[in-house]
Amino acid sequence: MSFQMIGMYRTPEDVATFDHHYVTVHAPLAATLPGLRRFTMTHPAPGPKGKPSEYHLVSTLTFDDEASFAAALGGEVDQQAVADLSNFAAAGVTILTGPVTTLL
Amino acid sequence: MSFQMIGMYRTPEDVATFDHHYVTVHAPLAATLPGLRRFTMTHPAPGPKGKPSEYHLVSTLTFDDEASFAAALGGEVDQQAVADLSNFAAAGVTILTGPVTTLL
Repeated sequence: MSFQMIGMYRTPEDVATFDHHYVTVHAPLAATLPGLRRFTMTHPAPGPKGKPSEYHLVSTLTFDDEASFAAALGGEVDQQAVADLSNFAAAGVTILTGPVTTLL
Repeated sequence: MSFQMIGMYRTPEDVATFDHHYVTVHAPLAATLPGLRRFTMTHPAPGPKGKPSEYHLVSTLTFDDEASFAAALGGEVDQQAVADLSNFAAAGVTILTGPVTTLL
């Protein structure tokens, strides 16, 4: 059973600066996490009635299993990635972690 | 570029009843959405310091592209799935939709 870390970034004041930093610095760094198998992101569209999404960016990082995720946690890359959050994610980020069940 | 719908369900009062309904009714129904390519769920673990996650369940539904997603939206299965939310998701659900960028 694979294991996921989902990062939900709240909409920043300056979206362009956020996106530039995420794509050029944070994502390339996070992509080197040991054991990371898959890494995607999405910019949620506005909801029904055009209400802007509460989150500007949702990232999904998938590991083979919880042990692989635990091994990456606290390592050098993880420490750098966590430290980097202060450079662009001041609006807040919610991290959700858990085992993945495949339904289809 | 594939297209994702992420459903974030807030923690219900009765977790066991929620899970039973989700696994036996809602997920099997949603799995029949036309054009759905991949469907996973995760129960987020408590955060740092043991703080319970705000969300009990996060589902991720992936379609080939936005057109496939749009075609499923409002169809018979989607209407049944939306109507079914009132049977188990009274605590609230946030739906995020957007195109998926693969970083790894």
